[in-house]
Amino acid sequence: MNHQQLFELIRRKKSFLCVGLDSDINKIPKHLLESEDPVFEFNRQIIEATIDYAVAFKPNLAFYESRGLSGMQSLEKTMRLLQSYSDNVFTIADAKRGDIGNTSTQYARAVFDEAASGFSFDAITVAPYMGEDSVKPFLEFPGKWAIILALTSNKGADDFQFFRSGDGTPLFRKVLATTKHWGSIDNTMYVVGATRAEMFEEVRKIVPDHFLLVPGVGAQGGSLSEVTRYGMNNHCGILINASRSILFASGDCDFAAKASEEAQSMQKEMQSLLEQHKLL
Amino acid sequence: MNHQQLFELIRRKKSFLCVGLDSDINKIPKHLLESEDPVFEFNRQIIEATIDYAVAFKPNLAFYESRGLSGMQSLEKTMRLLQSYSDNVFTIADAKRGDIGNTSTQYARAVFDEAASGFSFDAITVAPYMGEDSVKPFLEFPGKWAIILALTSNKGADDFQFFRSGDGTPLFRKVLATTKHWGSIDNTMYVVGATRAEMFEEVRKIVPDHFLLVPGVGAQGGSLSEVTRYGMNNHCGILINASRSILFASGDCDFAAKASEEAQSMQKEMQSLLEQHKLL
Repeated sequence: MNHQQLFELIRRKKSFLCVGLDSDINKIPKHLLESEDPVFEFNRQIIEATIDYAVAFKPNLAFYESRGLSGMQSLEKTMRLLQSYSDNVFTIADAKRGDIGNTSTQYARAVFDEAASGFSFDAITVAPYMGEDSVKPFLEFPGKWAIILALTSNKGADDFQFFRSGDGTPLFRKVLATTKHWGSIDNTMYVVGATRAEMFEEVRKIVPDHFLLVPGVGAQGGSLSEVTRYGMNNHCGILINASRSILFASGDCDFAAKASEEAQSMQKEMQSLLEQHKLL
Repeated sequence: MNHQQLFELIRRKKSFLCVGLDSDINKIPKHLLESEDPVFEFNRQIIEATIDYAVAFKPNLAFYESRGLSGMQSLEKTMRLLQSYSDNVFTIADAKRGDIGNTSTQYARAVFDEAASGFSFDAITVAPYMGEDSVKPFLEFPGKWAIILALTSNKGADDFQFFRSGDGTPLFRKVLATTKHWGSIDNTMYVVGATRAEMFEEVRKIVPDHFLLVPGVGAQGGSLSEVTRYGMNNHCGILINASRSILFASGDCDFAAKASEEAQSMQKEMQSLLEQHKLL
């Protein structure tokens, strides 16, 4: 999927919502624990309840890896279900990978190369600390995306992402300015947290045309309208991630219905914002 | 295992060698492909051939994840074999993880919490870009270690690790100076590449007592004696990683014997260096 196709998907669904599948087995409704694969059953119901309102789904690999092989089986089944929607969904492996070149190539195969690993996500999140040869291997898979950490939504973002050079440039701006030349707007996105909406103007000066994956709306306090005001471009250019606010909208038997309501409510707000920006 | 126990293991084996299990199924000797689990069989023979000369083993998770569920099975069997040597070996999951707090906790469970994931490594490599709340969850598991990326051995290290503040401090020094307060010398190590041996003096000014995990000796051109001269402290304080130079010393049926020779040769050099530093 390239950026134009992603924009078309957004226009078709009138939504730029990404549902983060941080499917913690300790938080899913208790009645699901009787299923053969409770986490997959949870994901299946969440996906089916929200697929009309979301353009992207983002399994957070930590929540699967923490359950070892059985967690990876849940992830594989979730991946297959997402694939069954083919061009109607954009899939992101939230993995924060990055290592020396030959190792990053293996990480890329782990999420992109179905023949090798069984997995075929559209995108992976990547940490930039190790530089160009750690990121470029992810950009060598046609149609696949690297989503590079720029400015994250957590408190720890202050520790290094705002480390400033002599002329006042913080590291996250250096990361944007450097990495944007490694790929194109068709295979590179950036993670920019919604908790720092005032930074979107700065970000857009450096990467006006790239898609941004934005965590931190909702539970973490970021505002959808603020992010959109400063972050949206002429092909939308933002994917808003929501995880806990949708997944755990209810902890009971009605969790899927409540997730659907929550996703639909976000979609409606997004539709209105897309209309305001004359993108529909 | 704390740093004193690790030092005792080093004195017992007269070695500070770590064998990196970057076990690429496309590079292992062809005759092994007839085994039920070729990568595990390769690892088993490598481990048994080098266990007398190495204090640590470091599976590189990318090479297992790239083979999907069957790769994770090879990793699990490798882990169990390493565990059978109990206190005679230090195990490192080379994974370069790091995410917001609740996610890093899940990544920590994935490698440390055997009841949850089936895996129980002693240590994990961690990327620092997301800051304190992304690293600290790994430090909350008693007896377990986070090995934080400081200065890596690859070319891309130049892109951001040498990004300098107004007073000339490069990011990697900022990372060392900041993160050393998050844990202790009993649960925190740093990755410092051997290809920049001249930097070890700078590193030791900031973290005189921490263990350093050092890739890049051998194939990547770093010198063992240079690293030792500037990096060794009074409890050794360095683990030298070798991967390809040992694993693929021969691509034929004699691969284990050749790996053993290569590991023994490094151990002998290390013994001599430990003696020179009066640590034996």
